[in-house]
Amino acid sequence: MNRVSELFPRKTDGALLIPANMGEVPESHPRYASLMSRQRLVDAMKEGLLADSALIAHGRGEAFDYLIGERTCSGAIAAIDEVAARMRVAEHPVISVNGNTVALACNDLLRIADKLGCPIEVNIYYRTPERMEALLGHIEAQATALGLNHVEILGGNPDGQIPGLDGPRSKCCKDGILAADMVLVPLEDGDRCEALVAMGKQVFVIDLNPLSRTAKTATICIVDEVQRTASALLSRLKNPKDSDPQFDADTSRRAVLEVMLGALGRDQSDA
Amino acid sequence: MNRVSELFPRKTDGALLIPANMGEVPESHPRYASLMSRQRLVDAMKEGLLADSALIAHGRGEAFDYLIGERTCSGAIAAIDEVAARMRVAEHPVISVNGNTVALACNDLLRIADKLGCPIEVNIYYRTPERMEALLGHIEAQATALGLNHVEILGGNPDGQIPGLDGPRSKCCKDGILAADMVLVPLEDGDRCEALVAMGKQVFVIDLNPLSRTAKTATICIVDEVQRTASALLSRLKNPKDSDPQFDADTSRRAVLEVMLGALGRDQSDA
Repeated sequence: MNRVSELFPRKTDGALLIPANMGEVPESHPRYASLMSRQRLVDAMKEGLLADSALIAHGRGEAFDYLIGERTCSGAIAAIDEVAARMRVAEHPVISVNGNTVALACNDLLRIADKLGCPIEVNIYYRTPERMEALLGHIEAQATALGLNHVEILGGNPDGQIPGLDGPRSKCCKDGILAADMVLVPLEDGDRCEALVAMGKQVFVIDLNPLSRTAKTATICIVDEVQRTASALLSRLKNPKDSDPQFDADTSRRAVLEVMLGALGRDQSDA
Repeated sequence: MNRVSELFPRKTDGALLIPANMGEVPESHPRYASLMSRQRLVDAMKEGLLADSALIAHGRGEAFDYLIGERTCSGAIAAIDEVAARMRVAEHPVISVNGNTVALACNDLLRIADKLGCPIEVNIYYRTPERMEALLGHIEAQATALGLNHVEILGGNPDGQIPGLDGPRSKCCKDGILAADMVLVPLEDGDRCEALVAMGKQVFVIDLNPLSRTAKTATICIVDEVQRTASALLSRLKNPKDSDPQFDADTSRRAVLEVMLGALGRDQSDA
């Protein structure tokens, strides 16, 4: 048994699992980022930031991420560049976040909001006062830690409604999502994505499942892990490129799907 | 908005999520089984049966299950038939279960153990006295409810060790896993699977990821969802077939992989 196996036992699907004490995981570990993400989600669950099934949704994403080798594919990079270019010239850009997004990429999204001078709106599917309070508190604490208190955090007092949706998930803010011409909404659900597109907004999502309704409905879907995307988006905003008139969202999505097919197919060709 | 969408909101990856009250989900719903499984896992987490990251592991499985259309593929049926045939003639078969397995398929595995006259051994990776007690209590309560109290439940007092493994995960029972010639171990991790195979046992696993180390190392991997497999295995044991000398484990595994490739590839061919 080698050292790495001792540090990181494996579960069910062969995935390594991190010990409770993350200090033991060396940054050089090939799955360091994925293991850190897993721990962030488990911690966020304990903090009350997440809905019951949030960890299951994260696991679904992990499987697709595994198929792309846990790295940002060229198809996704093209989508990130295009989203950065469009968000820079948006009149009223907004970043909409849910529990998983906050758990995984809060800091870089705050930096992106600062760079774009746009608000972040907390918008969750299973809205309870407790979760909203926990999420708003978490984001505000991170903003303070980063010296980004000026970034506007919306969502606590929704005064608008997304047409075509029922119940609490239709709630949004007039000065946020409702007024936005472009919305960056990582990890969006299909119904809401459709409803936002139907409002005439440009909807930019981040979704590891290239076959999901969200991925196919969005104006642009970045098929990549949310943390890597947030980090790459921030880098691109610091070194901006113009929008590419040749960019095609479906080509970008299918390019990542092709990488997944390659991963599954490689085993077949070993036969 | 149609009725189904009202009943089942969608999250992140387009997957439907069930409401807290499962009574609202009609059995006719196309994703009924998957939604029920999700709820069982969430309930099991609250009952203390699962490790922190168990829901993430379940989500990984869900993604692969989504690619096979949430149904048992012909490659998996061949594997199930062969596992049933071999377990029937085993000298000392044992069923090894972890938290997710108990949450998903406890009842059918108890019925299989009854049919085979074999013990069930609780064997978990993150062994704590609390989780062991919760799992043993849960299985015993189910056995009582099914009138199957005679099924031997092992694991509470491990007196043996699997060679080649370190720490608590090496623990097992002399009268259970250690003495077994064949072990049915759904959702096994790669290290333990390798160690059991190295002991000369026939190791039968159930794993939705056909590329995992577990899937490739096991004597036979049934690439299918654990509940569907347990149910199919029980049916086959009631209508037994003999072992098929032509059966090839790798062919069976790759046949399911082919179905996943088809699912991803269909989108590509829509271009």
